[in-house]
This record gives sequence, structure tokens and C-alpha cells, in this order.
Amino acid sequence: MKHETSSHTIKRARVKLGDAPLLLGRFTTLVAEHGARFGEITTVHIGKDHKVRDADIIAPSEAVFDEICDAIRRMDGIDLLEVKDVVHEAHRHGKIEIAPRVQVKSMDDLQIVYTPGVASICRRIEANPSLAYELTGIQNSVAIVTNGTAILGLGDIGPVAGMPVMEGKSLLFRLLAGINGYPILVDSKDPEEIIRTVAMIAKTFGAIKLEDIRAPECFEIETRLDEALDIPVVHDDQHGTAVVVLAALLNIAKYTHINLRRSTVGIIGLGAAGAGIFKLLHAYGVRRVLGNDIKEIMTEIFAAGGGVPTTLEGVMGEGDIVIATTGVPGLIRPELVRRKQVVLALSNPDPEIHPDEAIAAGAAFAADGKSVNNALAFPGLFRGALDARATHINNLMKIAAAEVIAGFASEGDLVPNILDRDVHAAVARAVREAALKSGVVKFVSGLD
Amino acid sequence: MKHETSSHTIKRARVKLGDAPLLLGRFTTLVAEHGARFGEITTVHIGKDHKVRDADIIAPSEAVFDEICDAIRRMDGIDLLEVKDVVHEAHRHGKIEIAPRVQVKSMDDLQIVYTPGVASICRRIEANPSLAYELTGIQNSVAIVTNGTAILGLGDIGPVAGMPVMEGKSLLFRLLAGINGYPILVDSKDPEEIIRTVAMIAKTFGAIKLEDIRAPECFEIETRLDEALDIPVVHDDQHGTAVVVLAALLNIAKYTHINLRRSTVGIIGLGAAGAGIFKLLHAYGVRRVLGNDIKEIMTEIFAAGGGVPTTLEGVMGEGDIVIATTGVPGLIRPELVRRKQVVLALSNPDPEIHPDEAIAAGAAFAADGKSVNNALAFPGLFRGALDARATHINNLMKIAAAEVIAGFASEGDLVPNILDRDVHAAVARAVREAALKSGVVKFVSGLD
Repeated sequence: MKHETSSHTIKRARVKLGDAPLLLGRFTTLVAEHGARFGEITTVHIGKDHKVRDADIIAPSEAVFDEICDAIRRMDGIDLLEVKDVVHEAHRHGKIEIAPRVQVKSMDDLQIVYTPGVASICRRIEANPSLAYELTGIQNSVAIVTNGTAILGLGDIGPVAGMPVMEGKSLLFRLLAGINGYPILVDSKDPEEIIRTVAMIAKTFGAIKLEDIRAPECFEIETRLDEALDIPVVHDDQHGTAVVVLAALLNIAKYTHINLRRSTVGIIGLGAAGAGIFKLLHAYGVRRVLGNDIKEIMTEIFAAGGGVPTTLEGVMGEGDIVIATTGVPGLIRPELVRRKQVVLALSNPDPEIHPDEAIAAGAAFAADGKSVNNALAFPGLFRGALDARATHINNLMKIAAAEVIAGFASEGDLVPNILDRDVHAAVARAVREAALKSGVVKFVSGLD
Repeated sequence: MKHETSSHTIKRARVKLGDAPLLLGRFTTLVAEHGARFGEITTVHIGKDHKVRDADIIAPSEAVFDEICDAIRRMDGIDLLEVKDVVHEAHRHGKIEIAPRVQVKSMDDLQIVYTPGVASICRRIEANPSLAYELTGIQNSVAIVTNGTAILGLGDIGPVAGMPVMEGKSLLFRLLAGINGYPILVDSKDPEEIIRTVAMIAKTFGAIKLEDIRAPECFEIETRLDEALDIPVVHDDQHGTAVVVLAALLNIAKYTHINLRRSTVGIIGLGAAGAGIFKLLHAYGVRRVLGNDIKEIMTEIFAAGGGVPTTLEGVMGEGDIVIATTGVPGLIRPELVRRKQVVLALSNPDPEIHPDEAIAAGAAFAADGKSVNNALAFPGLFRGALDARATHINNLMKIAAAEVIAGFASEGDLVPNILDRDVHAAVARAVREAALKSGVVKFVSGLD
């Protein structure tokens, strides 16, 4: 599953609108007619005979945005006062920072948090290492590790160009789960080097989130690190995505009255997302999973895990549920869709088949990837694992997360709102319980 | 130079004092008579005939603190209401956290800081890597790297037990210089592994601060990383300390009318601090530096750098200025002190010779290490280097820092107050200028 990575432009237009009725309607219609859509629209000033509004416009490209501006300038009763590059502004000097959790206003405060006070804390931890959970931020911190080889749908753009995404994940960790996410850029494409580097710094953190590392290297890096370390190591592109897809499937199964475990599921595209979805569905108990990928190595890994490789046509012909994560828009021709099939074409921004086309071709249910965002899963998944002092994030924990996420969706929706903190808190509780139940924790007593 | 690492205990006693005159005096005298001292004393309640005060008491040990409590309980007119472990409280779950620099209140905000907005920022950086300075937090972030082998004066207690110190440094980076300090614990004592690990993650940061890594490994680790990377790599125990010592010496030279460059300086203890002091004094132009260490390897490194190894007695007999950084209390017997000598016995909490003793033995000037804290240097040193986009922190930059620090000291003092933000801002400006002047920067134009 790819994220929305076309050349979308988000800019904020400040417009002065006269009081004539229908002016706002004409403005918004004009924007829509260019294939753009609105984000927030706020009123910043109310004058005697006009209003000034800030409108965030999401245009398919910079050029389209410029056309919209020209069209606004030609309209009567509306002035374009200013255009602001809100995305650029939001990213200036980074989206996160380190902040103090204690105050230091006096030399006396300094003696408490620094020398000599700190020495007593160091000594206590040296004598009893498990006190590090209580007396440092380690157990509330997650490394967000990338080597920049599969940043969003942009591909191998290098770790530095991937930093804004890592800062975004860190931001979501803080806002949705109160976790410190530390971006770590690893300057290597060699799995051995990456494994060695992450293992060397792992004691700094309570868990490791691998991020936007390309397949197939991501599989070995994750497996070997998770085996080697006593903290969870999770490649989010695989498992975060898989949890959200399972949540969506649980709701689809409810809406369409199908039995997920007894269904044949077909996966088109066996990269990180497809492979993660396969593994979780397999663990959930789905009996038969077909899969297809243009790269032989991906198919081999899939088969080794118990999947059944076949052709694209084979997947479409046999799958009760088909999930596409290829990044190839329009890959699924409508004539391949079977009657009563469930089709999830998850590539963003342009799906393998548009849901309306799939429904027209006979599908019982179809959706694209717009709402399937792994940010629904990872904050609660890690929060629960950290709270349990888990050593791994296992399938029981992921399934528990998916079930909670599914349960929070409004009737008719696949998944709930990403910004609903109650979802993340509930996921965390369920994941923590699943961790304690399945025994993948360092200490089972003394948790607070 | 060691920090204050004896078994000092800081606790907060809440006491109810009757209105009888002299009660507060008797209370404070009692504490002083036990060899303890006060931090902050605050009034938390004023009653009809009593006051309740919180008094932070810094006792030489837990046992002494308990004796003080017993003594308070036996006093008339004073009640010990509560004892609070303020140091423990301040360290609970860590002293730092990751905080957002942008707001995310709506799904619209999310589109700006996360997908799809973030993709345009990634693409811009991919096309023009130097935009990472503007559009990520990299250039405002410093890795605080330790392997835990020389934590304060506690020695090799391992990286996890050293974490509270790293968090303390991070806290000071934020408070004094607005820098993001990311603690990184490296789980190795092998210089090769440490060098490889730091180099692998270096792109995440604008500079690397090596911290509490023992000598002699620290020398090679710093030198090789600083050569290999295009960002500054500084071992703070060497250079932060050296900058503050040079600042103190500049003031001492003024007070005692000696010419620092023409003086013979003797250094007792050639570990990280002693070696750093030697290198900076050498660069500053001090002609002759004698040195002594019980470890042959340290002496060899010192000699290779142009120092003159000799005995402890040789240093004391010949040095116009003697600086001791051994961690051995009472090492310098008073009879070794020469008339008119300057003696800095910097080991904390117990110096190699007490300043009063040195003065009694004829020294022109003597001080211990209480005020010589490298937190005076590192925030401004790194701030200036980051602002200049420096590739190294060279001797000109360190000397510029020392001169500014010296200039801020009040008449009669060696150095200014650590918490004086004006000092750090001025140090940053001077360091940035020195970097630009000496050309150790990535870009000389386009700085804002």
C-alpha cells in the first residue's frame, strides 16, 4: 500500500469575499471544478461589507493551484490577498523538539536534576537495572529507524529526504500515545550494517519501529533484530498496515456477512504491506491466501511462509477477498472482478481499481486506501507494548489491536478517525493485556 | 576533573516552625552542624502562629540526613511533617520528552504535517539536500553519545545507568541553547564499533557530543569520527572542560598579573579532562606544559602531543600554574606547593588540595572545581557551531568561547553563572563568528 504521494499541493489562500450572496458558493465551486478540494476554511476578519477567509486548498499539482489563483483573480467580488505555503511553514526547522519534563529555574533545581543529585539516580540504576524503567525515559521512547529506501511512495530518496516523514511519525506518537519517537537515520542499504547499528543503540529505547525500509531487505532486518533484542522491533509498513487492514476486513465481513477465516483471500503485491497483511491474516486463521508479485523473490518469501503463489488472474478468479498493494494505478481491469467479490485496492492516491468501477463490475464491497492509514495502529500498538514492558509485538497483540480498531468504526465505516484518542487508548489497553496474557514481557509483576 | 559524586543526598523536608524568634536560626544551625547545607527554602503556608516551610537539604550521606531528621524531631517548636525524595521525583520517567513544534488539531492539520503534505517536503530535500537545514530539525539536533564507561566520577557503570546524566545534558542543551539533545546509548567498549555506529546514524544530527567515554579510547573515537564526518564531533569531557578551565585561567591571569602564554603550566592527571586542557592551552599558545599521570599510556599520548612528562613533584616544583584533574582527594601535599604558585585542584567533591591549604602553603591563588562546570561551555559551543553549519569545532572556536565566558565573570569570580542565558548566547555568537572566519563551515552564504 502506498501513501498519497502524487504531486499534491496544499496552500492557504487568503481571500476577501464581498457580501453578495452565493459568492462563497462560486468560490468553492471554482476550486472543485479544477479538481482541487478544501482543507480547513477559517474566517479571519469580518468587515462591514466583506469577510476575509483563509482557505486551505489541496490541488493535484502546483500548476493547477496557480490556475485556480488566476481564476480567483478574474472573479468579481473576491480578492486574493495572499498565498501561504503552509506545508513549508509547518516544516521549518522540523516538526518536533526535545522539551524538559522538569523545571530548572535555580541553581538549586540544577543540583536536583544534574550534579550532584543525578549521581544517586545513576547509582540506583546501576545496582538495580530495572529501575531504568522508572527513572529514565527509556521505556517511553521508540526509535523510528529508516534508511530512506522506501519513503512513502517516493521510493529510495535517502534517509535525509525521509526525515520529514520520520518527524511526522514522531509527532503522531506524541499526540496520539504520549510516546517519545526518536528519528534515527541509518546511512546504509546493507542489512548487516543496519542490524548491527540498531542493535548497538537499542538500549536507548523501549522499542524499535522500522520505517520505510524497502522489501525484501526489511524482512530480514526485522526478523533478526526482533530475535536479537529484548525489546519489540516492528516494521510498521508491514504490521501497522496489516493491523488496519485486518480491522477493515473485520468490519467488511460484518457488513457483507462473510466468514473471514473461511474465505480465500488474494493479495496482489507482496512487498512490505502485502507481506505483512499475509502474515497477520495467516495468524488470524484465514485458511487460504493466494498471492502475486512481479518480483520472484517476493513470491518465494510468500510461499515459504505458507502462501499460495499464483497469477494476477488467478488471484482475481479465486479470491473471495482481494487486497491490492502494488502502487500501480488501474492494474485491476473491471472484467477481472468476480461477482460478490470484496475488493480493497489500497494504493494511494490512485487505486488499482476505483471502488465504483469494482462495484459496477459486480463486487459486493469495494474500497480504496484513503482511510487505511497505519497511524491508526502504531501509536496504540507501541503504547501497549511499552506499558507491558513487552519483548515482542506478537500476532495476538496485533489481532487485539485490529479488533479494537474495528469496534470503534462508525456503522458503515471501515475504521475510525485517526485523531480519536480514545481509539489509541483502547488499543493500548488491549495490546498490553494481550502481551501479559501471552507472556512476551520482561516482568509480569510490579507494573503500574 | 571529576564531578560531585560522593554519596550526597538531596531531600526536601517539610517543617512546621512555631513563631518563637530564633527557631529558624536553630533549625538551620542544626543542619549545618551535621555537615549538610541548604538548597532552596520556600514558605508553603503561613498560619496564625506558625509557618510551614519546604527546605531542600543536601547532606553528605543518607545516614547523615536521617540523623538530621531525628535531631529535628527532638527540637521544641518545630515539627517534621514530611520528607520528600525530590531527586527521585524529578527523574521519574525521564527528564526530557519529544514535543510537537506544530499543531495537529484536525484532519486538515494532519494533511499538512503528514500525508500528503509531507511528500512535497521530502521531494524538495531530495532535489536539494541543503534544504534539510531549513525543513527538518537535523541542524538543531545533537546526539549525546555515551557507552557508559566514565559516567561522572562513577566510572564504568554501563550506558543505561548513565542515561540520567545524558538526559541532564539534553535538558541543559534545551534550556540554555534551544538545542535538541538526543541521548544515544552505545552498547560497546570497542572503539571500532562505537565509531562505526555513530558514523552510521550521524546524518540524523547537526553535531555529535561524545560524553563520559573513558580515556584513552575517547581520544581515538573523537579524532576518527571528527575526521570522517562533515559535522562536529566533540568529546565534552575533554573540550567542554578545557574551555571552562581556560576561561578561569584568563581571569586568574588578570587577577594575579601573570602572563598565561609565558607561564609554565603543569597538569596532574592526563585523562579526558587533563588531556583536553593540555590541547587547548597548547593551542592558546602556552609555551611549556608539564604533565603527570599514573598510567603510562596517558603520558605517552601527552608527550606525542608536545607535552613534557614529569613526576608529580616535578610538576609542582616547576609549574607556575598547576591544574589537577585526578579524582584523588588530598593528592597534593601542602609542602609541594611553591610560593606564588596558582593551584587549581579540580576534582569534585574533594579536591587534590583544599584552596585554603594551598594559600596557607604560599600559593598566590587557589581554587577547587566547584565552579568549573563544562555546562558553561557546551551549550553555546554547539549552538554557535550549528548556527554556522560548522564541520568541526576547532581551537579558535573554543578559545573564542573561553574568552567570552571569562568576560562574563563578576570581578573576583573565575566564571559566570551557568544559568545566565546571556552567557550562552554570547558564546554562541563568538563561536559562530570564529567558525565562519576560520572557514570550517559547509556553506558560507545563505545563513539566516
